[in-house]
Amino acid sequence: MTSIDFSKKAIVLVTGASRGIGRTIALEISRNLNQNSIIVLLARSGNDLEQTKTQIQEVDKSLTVITHSVDLATADVKTYELILDSVTTSVDTAGIEFGIVFHNAGTTGEVKQTTDLCSFQEWRKHFDLNLFSAAALNSVFVRKIRPIAPQLVVVNITSLCGRTPFKNLAMYGASKAAREMLFKVLALEEPNVVVLNYSPGPVDTSMFDGIIATAQSEEVQNSFRKVKETTILTPEQTVGKLLGLLEKGDFKSGDTVDYFDRI
Amino acid sequence: MTSIDFSKKAIVLVTGASRGIGRTIALEISRNLNQNSIIVLLARSGNDLEQTKTQIQEVDKSLTVITHSVDLATADVKTYELILDSVTTSVDTAGIEFGIVFHNAGTTGEVKQTTDLCSFQEWRKHFDLNLFSAAALNSVFVRKIRPIAPQLVVVNITSLCGRTPFKNLAMYGASKAAREMLFKVLALEEPNVVVLNYSPGPVDTSMFDGIIATAQSEEVQNSFRKVKETTILTPEQTVGKLLGLLEKGDFKSGDTVDYFDRI
Repeated sequence: MTSIDFSKKAIVLVTGASRGIGRTIALEISRNLNQNSIIVLLARSGNDLEQTKTQIQEVDKSLTVITHSVDLATADVKTYELILDSVTTSVDTAGIEFGIVFHNAGTTGEVKQTTDLCSFQEWRKHFDLNLFSAAALNSVFVRKIRPIAPQLVVVNITSLCGRTPFKNLAMYGASKAAREMLFKVLALEEPNVVVLNYSPGPVDTSMFDGIIATAQSEEVQNSFRKVKETTILTPEQTVGKLLGLLEKGDFKSGDTVDYFDRI
Repeated sequence: MTSIDFSKKAIVLVTGASRGIGRTIALEISRNLNQNSIIVLLARSGNDLEQTKTQIQEVDKSLTVITHSVDLATADVKTYELILDSVTTSVDTAGIEFGIVFHNAGTTGEVKQTTDLCSFQEWRKHFDLNLFSAAALNSVFVRKIRPIAPQLVVVNITSLCGRTPFKNLAMYGASKAAREMLFKVLALEEPNVVVLNYSPGPVDTSMFDGIIATAQSEEVQNSFRKVKETTILTPEQTVGKLLGLLEKGDFKSGDTVDYFDRI
């Protein structure tokens, strides 16, 4: 049973909630959440997080919205524990029916030829955020939220780049492939946790614009520019599909579902 | 055209050549190589590398065997450049027809529940060796060997764990999934480089024994122990299949081929 009843009281954690898909997840899920729910937003930019919070409170003033400005990549597991502890001790956790985390934070890393990806420092920086922080935060989430929520749901925002090779995107594809495998193993090990790897399709975000602006190869710039002019999705489109999936539970725990899959 | 003619003069680089699959690759390829070829062996343990060298020279005394004791994970791109430069300036590179690298070095990392994988330090250590060093060394290999070898071949030793989730092996599976994607992107970007991701099956090595000895879950220990008692392969079996594949060229550049695939 992988479906979620959003009318029940929940505790929600969203990483990278200051913009793009993360902000849209926070906003759209707020429309559906039970009003006693708690939503915790993490991102580097405190100002942008506050904007997300303001937008949520325009939707539903009764939700508890907690923001923490944190650089997930340079934080450590102790910081994550402190954040989760400060949340669980400051809110009314009674009656929570499910906890859900959206591992959304990430960067594209260096968008260049694979043979130019020779800096250990760049690799580490990219993986600190895109993989290691997701693994560590997830561990803390499961440990801290399991005692207060009968159902746990873990959503990994992945990418087609993690399953299909794209030129200039070896670093990003590698971290996304790694992260999908991590969460597939989690699903296998934890039959009581619902795990979804969601691949959002090409989405009109600053990350997408960043690829167009910084890709080393002109061919890559042009192909992404063409997508931006034609088939690109809005954050609302892809997040709508994601929340619908979670409500219907049309997936097996651990599955990867793409926006364009017919589900 | 992905096939390799081992009767031509070659320059060969093998990482993790001090034991297990790496040592067997070095030994078995030596039986086939043109006697003017150069084989470069990298690993941490200098003593074990020398043993591999001695065994190769028992097979064919005329091969040039160069060993470098190096910890790939703590080295950097400059060290890799120095090693390759010292090789190319000390041997007769005239008449080399192909260069081939076997990215074999790797560890299993922490063999435990995904929710216990919360140490950034452990993640970094694992990825330094299993992913970042392969990316950096490959970059140096392509840049330094391309000018002296008309054909370049890159072999990534991968694992089923990078494509199928196994309990307690999220860290290893993540790095192997990442590495496969890295080399698939390389194949896409570099049509003149032959890239093979080879998945060796379960092989009787100290790495396999290490999983049985250290896996957190008894279920995992038992399932690996059962494989060790039944279907496990010798290093010679899997390396034989690999070298046969490379000779026949029965794959598309970038493909992942498993020992058990009917090729």
